[in-house]
Amino acid sequence: MKLTLTEKLINSSLVEGNLERGTRIGIKPDQALMHDLNAMMTYLALEALDLDKIKIDLAVQYIDHNMIQADFKNDDDHRYIQDITSKLGITTARPGSGICHQLHLEHWGVPGKSLIGGDSHTVAAGGIGMLSIGVGGFDSAMVLAGETFYFTMPKIVKVELDGKLPPFVSAKNIILEVLRRIGVKGGIGKILEYTGSGVKTLNVAERSTITNMGQETGATTSVFPSDENTRKWLRAYGREKDYTPISADKDATYDEVIKINLSELEPLIALPHLPENVVPVSEVAGTKIDQVMIGSCTNTALNDVLSVANILDGNTVHKDVDAGLYPSTRTVIREAMARGAFDKIAASGFRLFEAVCGGCNGNGFAPKTDGVSLRTTPRNFYGRTGTKSAKVYLCSPEVAAASALTGVITDPRTLNVSPVEYELPEKFIDDYNIFIEPSSSPEDIVIRRGPNIKPVPEMKPMENILSGVTLLKLDNDVTTDHICPAGANFLPIRSNIPELSKYGFNVVDESFPERAKKSGGGFIVAGSNYGQGSSREQAAMVPRYLGVKAVIAKSFARLHLANMSNWGILPLTFVNEDDYNKISKDDVLSIDVSSLVEGKIYSLINETSNVTIKVSSPVSQDELEYVKAGGRINLVKEKISKDKKYEQ
Amino acid sequence: MKLTLTEKLINSSLVEGNLERGTRIGIKPDQALMHDLNAMMTYLALEALDLDKIKIDLAVQYIDHNMIQADFKNDDDHRYIQDITSKLGITTARPGSGICHQLHLEHWGVPGKSLIGGDSHTVAAGGIGMLSIGVGGFDSAMVLAGETFYFTMPKIVKVELDGKLPPFVSAKNIILEVLRRIGVKGGIGKILEYTGSGVKTLNVAERSTITNMGQETGATTSVFPSDENTRKWLRAYGREKDYTPISADKDATYDEVIKINLSELEPLIALPHLPENVVPVSEVAGTKIDQVMIGSCTNTALNDVLSVANILDGNTVHKDVDAGLYPSTRTVIREAMARGAFDKIAASGFRLFEAVCGGCNGNGFAPKTDGVSLRTTPRNFYGRTGTKSAKVYLCSPEVAAASALTGVITDPRTLNVSPVEYELPEKFIDDYNIFIEPSSSPEDIVIRRGPNIKPVPEMKPMENILSGVTLLKLDNDVTTDHICPAGANFLPIRSNIPELSKYGFNVVDESFPERAKKSGGGFIVAGSNYGQGSSREQAAMVPRYLGVKAVIAKSFARLHLANMSNWGILPLTFVNEDDYNKISKDDVLSIDVSSLVEGKIYSLINETSNVTIKVSSPVSQDELEYVKAGGRINLVKEKISKDKKYEQ
Repeated sequence: MKLTLTEKLINSSLVEGNLERGTRIGIKPDQALMHDLNAMMTYLALEALDLDKIKIDLAVQYIDHNMIQADFKNDDDHRYIQDITSKLGITTARPGSGICHQLHLEHWGVPGKSLIGGDSHTVAAGGIGMLSIGVGGFDSAMVLAGETFYFTMPKIVKVELDGKLPPFVSAKNIILEVLRRIGVKGGIGKILEYTGSGVKTLNVAERSTITNMGQETGATTSVFPSDENTRKWLRAYGREKDYTPISADKDATYDEVIKINLSELEPLIALPHLPENVVPVSEVAGTKIDQVMIGSCTNTALNDVLSVANILDGNTVHKDVDAGLYPSTRTVIREAMARGAFDKIAASGFRLFEAVCGGCNGNGFAPKTDGVSLRTTPRNFYGRTGTKSAKVYLCSPEVAAASALTGVITDPRTLNVSPVEYELPEKFIDDYNIFIEPSSSPEDIVIRRGPNIKPVPEMKPMENILSGVTLLKLDNDVTTDHICPAGANFLPIRSNIPELSKYGFNVVDESFPERAKKSGGGFIVAGSNYGQGSSREQAAMVPRYLGVKAVIAKSFARLHLANMSNWGILPLTFVNEDDYNKISKDDVLSIDVSSLVEGKIYSLINETSNVTIKVSSPVSQDELEYVKAGGRINLVKEKISKDKKYEQ
Repeated sequence: MKLTLTEKLINSSLVEGNLERGTRIGIKPDQALMHDLNAMMTYLALEALDLDKIKIDLAVQYIDHNMIQADFKNDDDHRYIQDITSKLGITTARPGSGICHQLHLEHWGVPGKSLIGGDSHTVAAGGIGMLSIGVGGFDSAMVLAGETFYFTMPKIVKVELDGKLPPFVSAKNIILEVLRRIGVKGGIGKILEYTGSGVKTLNVAERSTITNMGQETGATTSVFPSDENTRKWLRAYGREKDYTPISADKDATYDEVIKINLSELEPLIALPHLPENVVPVSEVAGTKIDQVMIGSCTNTALNDVLSVANILDGNTVHKDVDAGLYPSTRTVIREAMARGAFDKIAASGFRLFEAVCGGCNGNGFAPKTDGVSLRTTPRNFYGRTGTKSAKVYLCSPEVAAASALTGVITDPRTLNVSPVEYELPEKFIDDYNIFIEPSSSPEDIVIRRGPNIKPVPEMKPMENILSGVTLLKLDNDVTTDHICPAGANFLPIRSNIPELSKYGFNVVDESFPERAKKSGGGFIVAGSNYGQGSSREQAAMVPRYLGVKAVIAKSFARLHLANMSNWGILPLTFVNEDDYNKISKDDVLSIDVSSLVEGKIYSLINETSNVTIKVSSPVSQDELEYVKAGGRINLVKEKISKDKKYEQ
């Protein structure tokens, strides 16, 4: 049978299921990557599991997200991470040495292997021919603990690239074109597999710009074949031995096809506030801007920096524009300095920031009130910059650089600049000391744990009969921001569930935490799409900590549903949606869940109004077992302790 | 009469008084500098004054302090500053182009001239032979409005430098030696004037390291002569035309003398939590460290960066150390890149931050809980890093670099490194576009004012009879932190007095703002040293906004006393300190102040207990006039409007 590249990659790691679309499959990943923001919960979970050593071939930790260090909390997190990774056998990059996805591509990416990462943009590694999938902090912990990683076998979409990008139309425009065509939900349940004659015109960094931002289509991941360009990349980083060619069989069959002629692309731009609002730059050219940010895991490889330097060379940033560059890695900084590119960028008036995620995830460089910001980042979601009223446009580094000079959105082709041809260096500077190897005597490591770092709370198995009051009755579309607040004040306490819980449902009802604790827990009733928005697992952990036993809703958002099962809250849906009206706030409810079976219909009794309501749970049998155990962590804990017993 | 350098410099700008020590004198400064944190109140005051154009030869604005931009507030401040400076005729550096004091030395410092700056480290310019004094935001406004700047004629201390610094013992150790000898109060009421054969061994950057940190002795300022090294500095920056030689007359007489033999100095270090806790590095060598920060206005000129690069070259930062470099200016970055120094520093594992004040003033890079941080900054005050439990040591860049490699406090002479001789470049890179010139059509500028930027509240003249309740009765040593809270949550609302006022006396009594407003204002009674600590003028503006009419205390801290007069709160002291016991919280007081005269004794009546208490005001007649007018701003407003009338 002819196989797609995706099928070959999945087959290499497959341990459960088969390639039938829409079925649940399990893989054993070869590699894992984590960063400082999400990994805090990963390691706290592993501590709760009492794991001594990771059970995966390679795991690499990066420290690139929470880098402002406004008080002790960020640095405390970094030190905790450095100690626990060293103990567990995980290699760790020095703080500030680069953005995780780019450093991983440079130093660890291996074609044909699979990678699970505790960040949604892990999919960048698809650019080097890896199967790479982003997950939450707890799922990262499971992968590090050697557990099988489950997901639903997606459809495979062939994205056929032909032709060659014209001057000043760089790789970013390819993924903007994909987003223009399929939108931010167009990739859901799919993997985007790039093929065609245009592939060979793109180097690994350019390919990873495309796979990285492919995340914004909702796709499970995106992949490029591994070819001669991949070999060149690996050779330039002194890793040619890691090279394997891998690509789709000729005549492999795909579920869908998208065709893009690179030669016909022009500079594109995504308007506020979604990456799918893509139009040609020419349509909005002349719009006055306040800020330019070049950076993020999507766009600041060496080719981007050199291209930007070429446009800025000898010119000055417009006086009304605040422009800044976040380089992707230390190696990119060093190469760009050696080639004079950094000098040109500094001389033009760009601010040179650290090689971190920075402004992209709201950690600094927030624009002014109502500010128009042009960014090369993957996301322009409402409020993401830290300034709620800001209007963010997403574009290529070339459009960003040109616009920084003119003060208005500008098509770089309209400036009097000659393009440069970028050739991957034969050999990159050898940045040997970016990584710190794990300890050879892990038993000697004493973990430094700042006062804000608290263990994962102990969670008891679920009772056979759940009963309690209706603590909240909510409308449709409750987001994870409603459940567990976002923003700079709350990010640093994500690793402190008892503290964070004081703000549970803060936006909806400040009295919630107090009431929930006083009444010994209870139920939440909600409309449709409960838990939409960010994937933060704390939005399940906080209600659980406060004693929420089950959420009864018309429907749930997919990611939050998984988080609820992981953390032991029973998700229930109304068999008849109108029954939503049969429960009021403060009603006492009870339900017998002594036998939890996938698809089963249960009787929920409203003791206050003496009405019986039919409900069922929308999750799989596996996930019901997690809930029953009081959270998946309890199940895995049991398994690890059993393994240890037999190892002795 | 033989004159000291200091006397010559003061004479050049003197408009009132004479050189008699301890008397009040007035100067018309030639230049002013401001930075974004303190200048917000400067410009809000100038707006309240309705000033059209500055009345000083040269004023330069820098944007280097509040650079994190966690939300809209920082960038809103920057834009407001850019607009209003352009309107008023003030040249402005691009955000992030360098630290104000260093950029000023590079581009604007002129030997023989005088400079008033809205930052205490303005005294750095003493290194280029200027008379430079740091003041608060409101006093900066007065200087920009062309008002005379008053201060008390200090004693002049001769600091005689002989010999030549040994290898790895750089200029920082000279000022650490001065601090070791005279302590953090040893310079109060004095100017430190450097002379001797050792002076010619120091370039302008090294001299400014010394004058800059001279601030920590409490000295009014420090000065170096202008000589051939000064000429070389100016020539290297393309400004030889600004050169004038200036030095003390031979046999000039000084009030005190300190002698330092540079050849005998060794690497020194200031222990937590005061810059005067100076010991030889050898005494604490081997102490384990967590963090190294090289940067600040004191220490990151090119010579510092090259010296650090020489030590780090080919080596790797210790795995337990988080090390970072904040370069002083964009020109230093560019020169250091061109010479390969930045590559060596990056390659060693140092984080490369923006050319801003950054971690030095608590804007980022806070160490871990209980962290030991080695810094080249001028201050190691308790809590200044943003981490209250941190222990900060102050040292030279060489000690910092050596210790970063070993992970413990290290004398650089114990490493196997050859020293480098630094030669000032013949010509620095011409960084022509750092500064933005003010508008040529100021009337067309529309000022962008973010929602957090509020005008200075209108203040009514003082009533003839003050009466009201005793709102607070406080102990000794109330700090400005008690009156107006410090920390990252409150820094961004310093330009919003109505909002900030909601937190007035927050630490002492949260009900204060509400009570003060309800009762229509009143009095505060305090023990000795009221208003000690930071010079923030908001600690006077907030109580004034809340209706405080007078503070009756046993004694006041000097800087806060000036702020109270400037903002129209009457300071009163007990003639008999025991009378402090005759007033209780909530007592109703009244006092007739219809005639305000310096030194006069008034009768304060406690209406509640029917007791009369003798009080007087410890400020000058000028300052009493400010209070009478409801604040100095009202007086100057009147004057400016009169001037305008006659100009027409």
